[in-house]
Amino acid sequence: MLTPNLSYANLKESYLFFHIAQKTNAWLENHPGAHLYRMGIGDVSLPLVPAVITALHEAVEDQGVKDRFHGYMPECGAPFLRETIADHYLRRGVSLSRDEVFVSSGASDELGDLLDLFDRKNKALIMEPAYPAYVDANIMAGREIIHLPSGPDNHFLPLPENSIEADLVYLCSPNNPTGAAYNRGQLTAWVDWANSRGAVILFDAAYEAFIEEDLPHSIFEIPGAETCAIEICSLSKTAGFTGTRLGYTVIPKVLERSGLSLNAMWVRNRTTKTNGISYILQRGGAAVFTEEGQKQVFENIRVYKENARVLMEALDQAGIRYWGGKNAPYIWMECPNGMGSWEFFDLLLNRIQVIGTPGEGFGACGEGFFRFSTFGDPADTREAAKRLLDLFQELRK
Amino acid sequence: MLTPNLSYANLKESYLFFHIAQKTNAWLENHPGAHLYRMGIGDVSLPLVPAVITALHEAVEDQGVKDRFHGYMPECGAPFLRETIADHYLRRGVSLSRDEVFVSSGASDELGDLLDLFDRKNKALIMEPAYPAYVDANIMAGREIIHLPSGPDNHFLPLPENSIEADLVYLCSPNNPTGAAYNRGQLTAWVDWANSRGAVILFDAAYEAFIEEDLPHSIFEIPGAETCAIEICSLSKTAGFTGTRLGYTVIPKVLERSGLSLNAMWVRNRTTKTNGISYILQRGGAAVFTEEGQKQVFENIRVYKENARVLMEALDQAGIRYWGGKNAPYIWMECPNGMGSWEFFDLLLNRIQVIGTPGEGFGACGEGFFRFSTFGDPADTREAAKRLLDLFQELRK
Repeated sequence: MLTPNLSYANLKESYLFFHIAQKTNAWLENHPGAHLYRMGIGDVSLPLVPAVITALHEAVEDQGVKDRFHGYMPECGAPFLRETIADHYLRRGVSLSRDEVFVSSGASDELGDLLDLFDRKNKALIMEPAYPAYVDANIMAGREIIHLPSGPDNHFLPLPENSIEADLVYLCSPNNPTGAAYNRGQLTAWVDWANSRGAVILFDAAYEAFIEEDLPHSIFEIPGAETCAIEICSLSKTAGFTGTRLGYTVIPKVLERSGLSLNAMWVRNRTTKTNGISYILQRGGAAVFTEEGQKQVFENIRVYKENARVLMEALDQAGIRYWGGKNAPYIWMECPNGMGSWEFFDLLLNRIQVIGTPGEGFGACGEGFFRFSTFGDPADTREAAKRLLDLFQELRK
Repeated sequence: MLTPNLSYANLKESYLFFHIAQKTNAWLENHPGAHLYRMGIGDVSLPLVPAVITALHEAVEDQGVKDRFHGYMPECGAPFLRETIADHYLRRGVSLSRDEVFVSSGASDELGDLLDLFDRKNKALIMEPAYPAYVDANIMAGREIIHLPSGPDNHFLPLPENSIEADLVYLCSPNNPTGAAYNRGQLTAWVDWANSRGAVILFDAAYEAFIEEDLPHSIFEIPGAETCAIEICSLSKTAGFTGTRLGYTVIPKVLERSGLSLNAMWVRNRTTKTNGISYILQRGGAAVFTEEGQKQVFENIRVYKENARVLMEALDQAGIRYWGGKNAPYIWMECPNGMGSWEFFDLLLNRIQVIGTPGEGFGACGEGFFRFSTFGDPADTREAAKRLLDLFQELRK
């Protein structure tokens, strides 16, 4: 008799985005034709840039012509793209061999798959508020989770303590949902802590392209990270690949535990469990790293940063505390008047038709906070900011 | 201290295709400019069909225009493609709900990921010769493997026995590497066996499009399969998507073990561990199932079938025993004169520059056999068949 993976029974209902959709749809049914200002889900609103579109069309053409057609791609990534990404790291002072870069379908896919490299008895440290999939993927593996709550006291940037007994550590910087980003000193503290106890850091750098200040974009800018860290990146937010899918992962060759090379293990995993990433998507991804591609994707990022500026201006004027917005595409605000995060969600939906994400969905310590995505339509974001300011001023009376 | 997944240390070096490449490259170095007749790897040689190319271009265009741009896709697949695939099953008499069809990046990726649904204490039954990844993925999970060897006596189509104590069963029909395909009665025996003991069948249907005779294309053509089977399909061979990537998986809603719905578990897995499959690739995949797309992909399959015919004719003339070729894109032949499969590989390479795959790479019982892929270039295949016949006739003297 087959036994299913009974750890799935320990998962809580993943209701966050489902519940948001339910409430939103119910409101729309009662208000047919009404417009909503959507700043909830972290999906981009701008299309792919012209350099990427051109490369994708060229690659599609190749796939239709016998002598340019590409069959199975190398499982760890096309050499042209691994090389291109290694060069990209070199420009920020991180020297990688091409074989340390793995092409992926995106950060979500990779964060799920990578866990196969680790024993299920390892304890995973998850700083909260956090992307809910970190927790769920480890529950599915039956792994013990240590929750490290954060809050305004540490600016949502918790630091390591010697008492923490974790083997696997999730670090997301700039952070989803709080938008907080670690500086060099803080990341050095984590790297030193991990090296001192043989822990491994899973560094989620999905939002690195939004960093404006002098902060590390990569964990590998920190000396010693090569013996304790894996970096997971994505073109989803950098270049609008949310629905196109492409990402990359860096696993240094010197990263070993119990005498096993995690890089070699991942090569073995990919060659066994995949047949590589679409040639078409890899060509599109490579175009992101060209001079033209970089210029174009940063024009899009500037649009999202203007969204952030408009929202931050409204929050500043209303005297609301918030984090992020500057080095990240998310703004994490304190709900006004001690409101609960779902209560605040309902208020925004019903009164000003603005959709955000209740902080409680990212862990218990997120209660009382609220996330805005800055990936929305610019005109919608401006109107939402205006409505938010009016509402806050009314609430203060 | 992080402990890696130590089961990886139990993997044998996966040398099959690596070793083939090594020997081939060494030969080419000594014979610069020489041509090789490649019928080793199961990669297609014909480009994508026009209907798919048109759909891919249209989808790329959508991704460049703001009001047609697609961000995150539903994790289990785009409704249009799930519906299209369900309709495709209906045309062969299998009624599925759209929610029973999951879009994937391909069969390899899915065969690796799906194992997360099962407890690691389950025993996996693998019929050999077999696709090496079945074995390796289960070793990575620390799962006990029961090897069921097959051979000419059972036409490489082993049947269940009550003494088999397995929980998870891999069935690949038409088979890679032997090309053998089960008939209705034989599949019914497996379905009845699985239902009687609560086992689950992973049915790899990657080669179903090559079936010519009246044999089941889907395990769900067999009554009772819906309570014991998951079907994994791919467009890689059906429509030349080896380097483009797209597949689909069917998990019936009534398939439950220990009170858990495997369909619901997979929904939870996909929503946690992925962000869906590329919009562009899903549009390309949907075009395969249109009337025009079906006509065009079957024209390509006819080319591969002509390759098979040419090779089978040579083997028939030489009096060599073989399996497959008719309902499958692989031909599995007995090595002449009791030769070992690597010995025969070397002979073909050195004497007639034909590349095939030694049967020993698919499990111990594959020794003494040799696989030809029929996905090669038609002119090359004709020349290879001629050279094979000449060589066999010479060997017989």
